[in-house]
Amino acid sequence: MPSDADARPPAPAELPPALAELAAARDASDPLAACRDEFILPEGVVAYLDGNSLGRPLKATSDRLARLVDQEWGERLIRAWDETWMDRPLALGDQLGRVALGAAAGQVMIGDSTTVMLYKLSRAALDARGGRTEIIADTENFPTDRYILDAIAREAGRTIRWIDPDPAGGVRLAEVEALLSERTALVLFSHIAYKSAFIADMPAITAAAHRAGALVLWDLCHAAGAIEVALDASDVDLAAGCSYKFLNGGPGAPAFGYVASRLHGELTQPIAGWMGHADPFTMGPGYVPAPGIRRFISGTPPILGMAPVQDMVDLIERAGLPAVRAKSVALTEYVIQVADEALAPLGVTVASPRDPALRGAHVTLDHPRMREAVAELWRRGVIPDFRPPQGLRVGLSPLSTGFAEVATALAHLRQILAAGA
Amino acid sequence: MPSDADARPPAPAELPPALAELAAARDASDPLAACRDEFILPEGVVAYLDGNSLGRPLKATSDRLARLVDQEWGERLIRAWDETWMDRPLALGDQLGRVALGAAAGQVMIGDSTTVMLYKLSRAALDARGGRTEIIADTENFPTDRYILDAIAREAGRTIRWIDPDPAGGVRLAEVEALLSERTALVLFSHIAYKSAFIADMPAITAAAHRAGALVLWDLCHAAGAIEVALDASDVDLAAGCSYKFLNGGPGAPAFGYVASRLHGELTQPIAGWMGHADPFTMGPGYVPAPGIRRFISGTPPILGMAPVQDMVDLIERAGLPAVRAKSVALTEYVIQVADEALAPLGVTVASPRDPALRGAHVTLDHPRMREAVAELWRRGVIPDFRPPQGLRVGLSPLSTGFAEVATALAHLRQILAAGA
Repeated sequence: MPSDADARPPAPAELPPALAELAAARDASDPLAACRDEFILPEGVVAYLDGNSLGRPLKATSDRLARLVDQEWGERLIRAWDETWMDRPLALGDQLGRVALGAAAGQVMIGDSTTVMLYKLSRAALDARGGRTEIIADTENFPTDRYILDAIAREAGRTIRWIDPDPAGGVRLAEVEALLSERTALVLFSHIAYKSAFIADMPAITAAAHRAGALVLWDLCHAAGAIEVALDASDVDLAAGCSYKFLNGGPGAPAFGYVASRLHGELTQPIAGWMGHADPFTMGPGYVPAPGIRRFISGTPPILGMAPVQDMVDLIERAGLPAVRAKSVALTEYVIQVADEALAPLGVTVASPRDPALRGAHVTLDHPRMREAVAELWRRGVIPDFRPPQGLRVGLSPLSTGFAEVATALAHLRQILAAGA
Repeated sequence: MPSDADARPPAPAELPPALAELAAARDASDPLAACRDEFILPEGVVAYLDGNSLGRPLKATSDRLARLVDQEWGERLIRAWDETWMDRPLALGDQLGRVALGAAAGQVMIGDSTTVMLYKLSRAALDARGGRTEIIADTENFPTDRYILDAIAREAGRTIRWIDPDPAGGVRLAEVEALLSERTALVLFSHIAYKSAFIADMPAITAAAHRAGALVLWDLCHAAGAIEVALDASDVDLAAGCSYKFLNGGPGAPAFGYVASRLHGELTQPIAGWMGHADPFTMGPGYVPAPGIRRFISGTPPILGMAPVQDMVDLIERAGLPAVRAKSVALTEYVIQVADEALAPLGVTVASPRDPALRGAHVTLDHPRMREAVAELWRRGVIPDFRPPQGLRVGLSPLSTGFAEVATALAHLRQILAAGA
């Protein structure tokens, strides 16, 4: 690789001393600092700011997988289905609901990909509001949400009413209320916007949708494990999310789905597989949905894929989500302070809400040359996300990210932008 | 557990000497015998005859998972998506196609559960035959296949024409031809029947369906990795299967799906997720399906879940599927010989085809008291499957099953039935 061999190492990247010292002070007083040592922190990675896309693995996870493979699977073999595995997608769902989602037991299951889960729950909602013709969604939602709704709307002859929110903010109640009507079947938004980290007003939007007689599906991909979600208290109907971001489940880890208990009897999901049957092993002629949340399971639960999630949900439970959220706010506040004091002079703007009450666990920084800057950061072992057209997402997975790590990353960004990258 | 503590150990279970000696001879001359040592073979399991439901793990698998977690995921982090993971569901699909499915590259992808995959491909087929109103299926197919078709037919206003095949055999060409017409949109059968192990005539049924203008979807759950499947040569349209049976992918391992290249431009799947997009990371406004087989992927590929499958596909490639099939035939022949010579006097009947050309990799043995006998076998560490109403499935995963293991299991069955269990 001649281009690497010829490149001179850059001079040390540093923030102004006060900002670097502030990071050290924040780490020193961080009550969750020890949690970071539970993650694999490889030498070659200078800073990892993409835990909101793929969380780091816990050190415990490969041992858990080895036990699962060599002992549960290897020794118990098929018997493990009866002994533990059949219950696992619901037991882990219950724990996740209690620890991170504000959901009482019996309403959360693990399985499928997020895409498939969103499809199933969207279809269930539309079928339950058969006389209604409209879906409300927003153009800033994650692509898979939009693509799925597009396809469903086309096949079911429904119309999507698109909200086009401020890209640095998100969907506001008034924008939703302006579109809600007796024609609205389903409302689908992300609780935390994947670009801006804007936190949508879940209770108010849900209540408004209910006043119009619609059902609401919340995408929790960027919320689960990062902020305190209150599904039951917000009277949410449906929610789905992934487990490979702040739940550190690993690449392609399974999704979770929430269906409020009051809807279990009313909703029917389209992928009526054997594992959602009331008695899968009778193998009878007709599909009889299981009582409760199990009816929303389709195929055989992904037991291996759930194992890393279990480690992280256990850790979040030990840390406590209020403490996790407090650290998350402190991390995002620090990024914004650095942006204002050290990066704004180079043309960087903050494309996330400045009010921490409206901001999730990442901060998006915009710059016209950000695509090139992120490429150079990656070459240096500093790993954030780039999001078109010009956003660097500073992902701040609270339990695995340190303030000094963030300071180092932003010092590199500053150096690269100052050099005219 | 007083019932266990009080139970007297049963006397040694033995087959007639000639049958036991035959098993030893078969093991001694088995060219694949060494492969069995590559699997985890725990002490407490006397015999495992359920590898057609959940294959045993390979010894290599926990190390592969540890490397994946600690190195690929832990050190490469999000960068691994670009480096290897994005291609993995197609690369493993290509290898599986080459090694086990008779499928040229570019037609197989890994992902979803079998249930979801069957749903997606069934829907794709029905949408492509929009003017046709009928589906042909059989009442002896695995429950999830039947449940999915029921739900799809109901929502799409299609009619299922059910074949009710001989439970100890399977679907015959003439039965299919009797129902095929210009109204037929889709034909869905299992290549190998999950109860009887009957091998349906894939080339002839596919050709007959094509003459009627219908599309054919084959369920390969009990075929993949056990017999030589010839998807391309049989001109098959669509196929799906699971990877936790003879592909030893572990509990809830992902499915695979096959779509013939000639149909990629014609078929559209209903779950239009971001990972099937032509350029997922532009995150643009509209869904543009990827060229080729990638368009049938929906959500983020389950990278952890694919790892054990990789180990087994590698092993099958080394062993060679013709040799695997030859051992499989020898194993099932041995079971039938024992059934005829040592179990028939106790009332056991063979509920699988006697012609090895029509029989997959398991043998079902019927007996009026089989449910109780299987429960007792499990207590003794002999693990087959029970399938209602009265079938013991002797699953014979060729690479992990030994003849002496089978002899021991059937000796216990004989002893239990002789004692009037």
